[in-house]
Amino acid sequence: MLDLTSLRADTPGVQHVSHFNNAGASLMPQPVIDAITRHINLEAEIGGYEAAEAQKEAIQGFYTATADLLNTTADHIAATANATDSYARALSSIPFRERDVILTTTNDYVSNQIAFLSLQKRFGIKIVRAADEGNRGVSVDDMADKIKSLHPRLVAVTHVPTNSGLVQPVEAIGQLCQEHDVLYLVDACQSVGQLPVDVSRIHCDFLTATCRKFLRGPRGMGFLYVSEKTLAANMSPLFIDLHGAEWASVDAYRLEPTAKRFEDWEFPYALVLGAAEAHRYALKVGLDAIAERNAALCATLRTELAQLPGVRLLDEGAQLSSIIILYSEQKSAADLKSALSARKINTSISTHGAAILDYDRKGMKTAALRISPHYFNTDDEVALLIDTLHHAFK
Amino acid sequence: MLDLTSLRADTPGVQHVSHFNNAGASLMPQPVIDAITRHINLEAEIGGYEAAEAQKEAIQGFYTATADLLNTTADHIAATANATDSYARALSSIPFRERDVILTTTNDYVSNQIAFLSLQKRFGIKIVRAADEGNRGVSVDDMADKIKSLHPRLVAVTHVPTNSGLVQPVEAIGQLCQEHDVLYLVDACQSVGQLPVDVSRIHCDFLTATCRKFLRGPRGMGFLYVSEKTLAANMSPLFIDLHGAEWASVDAYRLEPTAKRFEDWEFPYALVLGAAEAHRYALKVGLDAIAERNAALCATLRTELAQLPGVRLLDEGAQLSSIIILYSEQKSAADLKSALSARKINTSISTHGAAILDYDRKGMKTAALRISPHYFNTDDEVALLIDTLHHAFK
Repeated sequence: MLDLTSLRADTPGVQHVSHFNNAGASLMPQPVIDAITRHINLEAEIGGYEAAEAQKEAIQGFYTATADLLNTTADHIAATANATDSYARALSSIPFRERDVILTTTNDYVSNQIAFLSLQKRFGIKIVRAADEGNRGVSVDDMADKIKSLHPRLVAVTHVPTNSGLVQPVEAIGQLCQEHDVLYLVDACQSVGQLPVDVSRIHCDFLTATCRKFLRGPRGMGFLYVSEKTLAANMSPLFIDLHGAEWASVDAYRLEPTAKRFEDWEFPYALVLGAAEAHRYALKVGLDAIAERNAALCATLRTELAQLPGVRLLDEGAQLSSIIILYSEQKSAADLKSALSARKINTSISTHGAAILDYDRKGMKTAALRISPHYFNTDDEVALLIDTLHHAFK
Repeated sequence: MLDLTSLRADTPGVQHVSHFNNAGASLMPQPVIDAITRHINLEAEIGGYEAAEAQKEAIQGFYTATADLLNTTADHIAATANATDSYARALSSIPFRERDVILTTTNDYVSNQIAFLSLQKRFGIKIVRAADEGNRGVSVDDMADKIKSLHPRLVAVTHVPTNSGLVQPVEAIGQLCQEHDVLYLVDACQSVGQLPVDVSRIHCDFLTATCRKFLRGPRGMGFLYVSEKTLAANMSPLFIDLHGAEWASVDAYRLEPTAKRFEDWEFPYALVLGAAEAHRYALKVGLDAIAERNAALCATLRTELAQLPGVRLLDEGAQLSSIIILYSEQKSAADLKSALSARKINTSISTHGAAILDYDRKGMKTAALRISPHYFNTDDEVALLIDTLHHAFK
């Protein structure tokens, strides 16, 4: 059982808002805020490089905390600016050729889909999307068939889509990729921090994530996990800098042996230190306990929200995440968000363009309201949200 | 004349250190620090997305201030994580083919050189470096000859190298690129904030920079200028996300019309707001006044430093920047830096690997001490630095 009183005492935001926008950016706990402002002040006092030097060990703490979170070691972690940045660095390390296949799903994140289209335009790769298994997410059987028949250059799966409560079977797909020796990239942007994410069970070559969402870290920080196989194969980002490689002679550079080769030299160290605190905080609260609490919160919410008149919840899947998509053709999502906002309840909007394949299949025509609770939300906050929506639908 | 008293009163760091590491990261003035911490606190109180929404106009201020700094308009500015990140995004928008030529200089920044080598390895491009004109930087005549004979896909020049006091003739080269319709990328990482940088005079297609150096902004922020010609030609980064393009249909995306297409969706808005303050601060102090003050400081420093026994200053060029490279074969740069550090004087070290072409030509064998003053340094600080070095050489 989580000690909600103490967890909320750590979170200044809960005194100001009822925050159901954790899939957007969560509320930072005090240790995260303190780490950021402390380092900004140190930089202002003694200089930016000098502050980084003074906090060298604490900065290394980002790598160990992130590794602990994913069940790996610090050498496999690269710090990045955000999940999309992690994703670009990972993709850029693959020398795509014409007719190479990227095998993905209908529910992969919109930015990833746009990046695949850009690779298609530039290099003539092929994008193939595995079929869904009814409303249970991507079909592992179809993935298996397509891996065997198409020999994809890359399999790319978003663990928890931004656009519905689906959780994709990333471990089963990882098993297939391992058997067939195919590169495997998992976007865990919406799953880390709300579910246990274990790279030794997922068997991925790359895993991308952001710090600001369910991990409760600062905006503008992300990370990338890189497997031993990938490092041993000397894969490196296309635009590598003096941090990832050493200029060895006029015509040659030497790669950094660890995942640091996927990083740039420069970092906002205040945010790196804030993210380290966030990751330690998540580990301290416990990912199993968080997942359990969130499942209970979401079960209550989904039951209550389904009672609203003319409303459809677009969440489907064998297992559901802390993302709830409420769709109504009578009330616009913008109006609902405004009504909630007037009572200091934070939610967000999911537009059709965020997931055209999934939303077309579900017959969505306009935008939907996205409600994403997290473990520190209370029953009172849930009741206030439901009550406000009932009034909005009157 | 600058009002040093008031400028220093704005700068908490000057009470703690004598900062001669402005080519590393400068000392942030109070308005920058305040903007950062204010926004971190706002995010903690009301949520990260909600805070960005509340500060929408102030965030737009980053683009207008940066545009003012470069003499362009906000639509041509993209915010990035750092100069290397800007550089990668710019390079990634060029669909390089085998045997395409990148024409650059012997003094281009090490990370750029490594990125070119990576492109060479991946796509079979050719890297050609224009000859230097004695010790006056790159030869504009040789640039002209090579542009005519090689038809380069890209001309890339670092305005102020990190490794010496050189200032490259970026405006004269821009004239050539315009005449011959060649893409032109200028790395202004070390020049913005210490010199007036005017894209309408440089005639570049891309200009990359960072905020933490002579602009005195936060670490982990940079920007990219993109010309009208580049935007009109629909050039876009290889790894574009939902911020730079809209997922229009299953197989197509629509580009954002402005330079925002070079950005990711996610930002550390606290740092964006801090950078906006830094850019406005630089404009308020005035780039001409800054350049004049820095030239005077550097003239004194170079005269005094040259008196040290067995020392060579590696700065060459028709015009010199606020980067001074002090080289000694008797005293290690690390020892000199430590001796200065013991008296709270910040400098940095320039290793051979940072500029192997330039340093080989200059006969540099070990690392050198880099001294990079900025306008807020006082004569007393200069005297203390000189005195400390005299003691170190005894």
